[in-house]
Amino acid sequence: MPAWEMNVRKVIPYTPGEQPDRAGIIKLNTNENPYPPAPGVARVLQGMDAGKLRKYPDPAAGELVSALSERYQMPKEQIFVGVGSDDVLAMSFLTFFNGDKPILFPDITYSFYDVWAGLFQIPYECQPLDGEFEIVTKDYLKPCGGIVIPNPNAPTGAEKDLQELERIIAANSDVIVIIDEAYIDFGGESAVRLVSQYDNLLVVQTFSKSRSLAGMRIGYAFGNEKLIKYLNDAKYSFNSYTMNTVTIAMGVEAVRDEAYFQETVGKVVATREWTKGELHRLGFVFQDSKSNFIFASHPKCQAKKLFEALKERGIYVRYFAKPRIDNYLRISIGTDEEMKALVAFLDKYIGENLWLN
Amino acid sequence: MPAWEMNVRKVIPYTPGEQPDRAGIIKLNTNENPYPPAPGVARVLQGMDAGKLRKYPDPAAGELVSALSERYQMPKEQIFVGVGSDDVLAMSFLTFFNGDKPILFPDITYSFYDVWAGLFQIPYECQPLDGEFEIVTKDYLKPCGGIVIPNPNAPTGAEKDLQELERIIAANSDVIVIIDEAYIDFGGESAVRLVSQYDNLLVVQTFSKSRSLAGMRIGYAFGNEKLIKYLNDAKYSFNSYTMNTVTIAMGVEAVRDEAYFQETVGKVVATREWTKGELHRLGFVFQDSKSNFIFASHPKCQAKKLFEALKERGIYVRYFAKPRIDNYLRISIGTDEEMKALVAFLDKYIGENLWLN
Repeated sequence: MPAWEMNVRKVIPYTPGEQPDRAGIIKLNTNENPYPPAPGVARVLQGMDAGKLRKYPDPAAGELVSALSERYQMPKEQIFVGVGSDDVLAMSFLTFFNGDKPILFPDITYSFYDVWAGLFQIPYECQPLDGEFEIVTKDYLKPCGGIVIPNPNAPTGAEKDLQELERIIAANSDVIVIIDEAYIDFGGESAVRLVSQYDNLLVVQTFSKSRSLAGMRIGYAFGNEKLIKYLNDAKYSFNSYTMNTVTIAMGVEAVRDEAYFQETVGKVVATREWTKGELHRLGFVFQDSKSNFIFASHPKCQAKKLFEALKERGIYVRYFAKPRIDNYLRISIGTDEEMKALVAFLDKYIGENLWLN
Repeated sequence: MPAWEMNVRKVIPYTPGEQPDRAGIIKLNTNENPYPPAPGVARVLQGMDAGKLRKYPDPAAGELVSALSERYQMPKEQIFVGVGSDDVLAMSFLTFFNGDKPILFPDITYSFYDVWAGLFQIPYECQPLDGEFEIVTKDYLKPCGGIVIPNPNAPTGAEKDLQELERIIAANSDVIVIIDEAYIDFGGESAVRLVSQYDNLLVVQTFSKSRSLAGMRIGYAFGNEKLIKYLNDAKYSFNSYTMNTVTIAMGVEAVRDEAYFQETVGKVVATREWTKGELHRLGFVFQDSKSNFIFASHPKCQAKKLFEALKERGIYVRYFAKPRIDNYLRISIGTDEEMKALVAFLDKYIGENLWLN
């Protein structure tokens, strides 16, 4: 081992879902939106002067912050933007979780939380979901270094009641509570309206799911002015210009087209509800998802085998080889046609394999 | 002070140069390239299918890595890419500088180094440039936690002899030595060819200057396979998808157009040499810059006053209110027309103000 390896920060990185690029596959494994981004996004590509790109972008991404400010009726000083909600969350962990006490988050949740804690050497303590995969409020009413709760939770898709979340936020006024709302637009109740009441609350959202812009990496957060100032100080100490010129312009168009946003979100929700009915009919069990995915298990069918069979057929879903959830599949909501193809395959597979597992 | 502030990482952020967006100004303050990016970059904007952006980008930015691999004849496993060289450097500080001994870098240098050290709580010790603003080799031949040397140095523009750098790299095999080559393409000799010999060497470059893509944020680094693996582990522990779909495609086009690259770099170098002659004629003193800027001082003219007078005229240059360099201006190389306008202003200003300062 070379001597320089002694000083290396050694980490176990997050594993993103596969990004197969073959034609003809049905990709339901990374919770992408099946519909293209708002038409204005294509117009940015057509109208952008490439010559402008020789210059640095606006480090504050001012136009994007203004567009978000208008859409969410939130002062600009209370908005932070970054390269996807992962960037926003990573900067938040780095900025706010520097105490000695462990931070708290669910045991079954977005699998990046413990990775960030590892990277920044933040002590943490996972709070087990109950037998119904619900977050237990009282587990978060104790001294800690901070709290992260995704709502709806991933990969379960379940929503936590906002009054319960407010109890947690109120009981932890001495630390920052992050509500990660990556999937909130698909039917959940947002905590954004609590930002004005609780100065320890940070609400994080993303353009990757409900605004069909996973490919451009835009995330944002709402919090009180002081909290956002600290977050920006850390950002400007890491990389002054994180968001590029094209991304900023696209983000503005995506957030301004409210009609398109409502329309595509509505379609995803309708398809999800149809899919729930079909999965129930096939004998799957799952929580009532308020997200753009369903986390389902079949009592008579091994998830890992089904995952592999689906992949063979060109249908990609997500499987986690982790305790408690290793008999579940996380299935993103695609178009009606994609979900029909999935259900048709499941119909056949379950008919043939039910008694073999 | 709210209790949660106790756990906040408090930092003093880097201050980027102003990004005024008014028409008619001459912007020589952030070392941008005066020429547009390669024509292929505009073609990416025209040809990109916006519908693709609903999907996540390739987390490994494989096509960009391949293009760099081909251009620099470097195996793909030895290439890291990020959101500008600032992102690459920030990740490198986080990954490699975790020892107890201080890291070393020049006292007059890129002013982000001490900011990253501050953010990640890395001990550091600045090594003073000599009276001629040269890096002193022997200052870097002592036990330390790592080394960062920009070559050419910024804001001086001076190149350090590659043999001297090699002495430093060889003498510090127990720590990582980063050579920050943001400006190398404007006439310096790159350390890239040393990567195969020294497993502790990381060479960082950027698309922001010589490839006219500051607005898109692309940086990269070369190092041995193991070192790049550690860097990628840290990156995948921070944000899986840092580079977006459009940026990756643009980067590929920019790196593949070697003829355009040579042509525009050649033009900047020619304009720089002309500007040197004019500044000498006007009585300015400066080192022999190998970058796309000149760091100049006038023995009879206060830099701060001149900076303000230039700004009033709509010519932006960079002024640093820091010890040892507070009588210097860093002037980026623009087009011939822009530099002629600068020189015309200086001619007049110096004629009128020489004895007033």
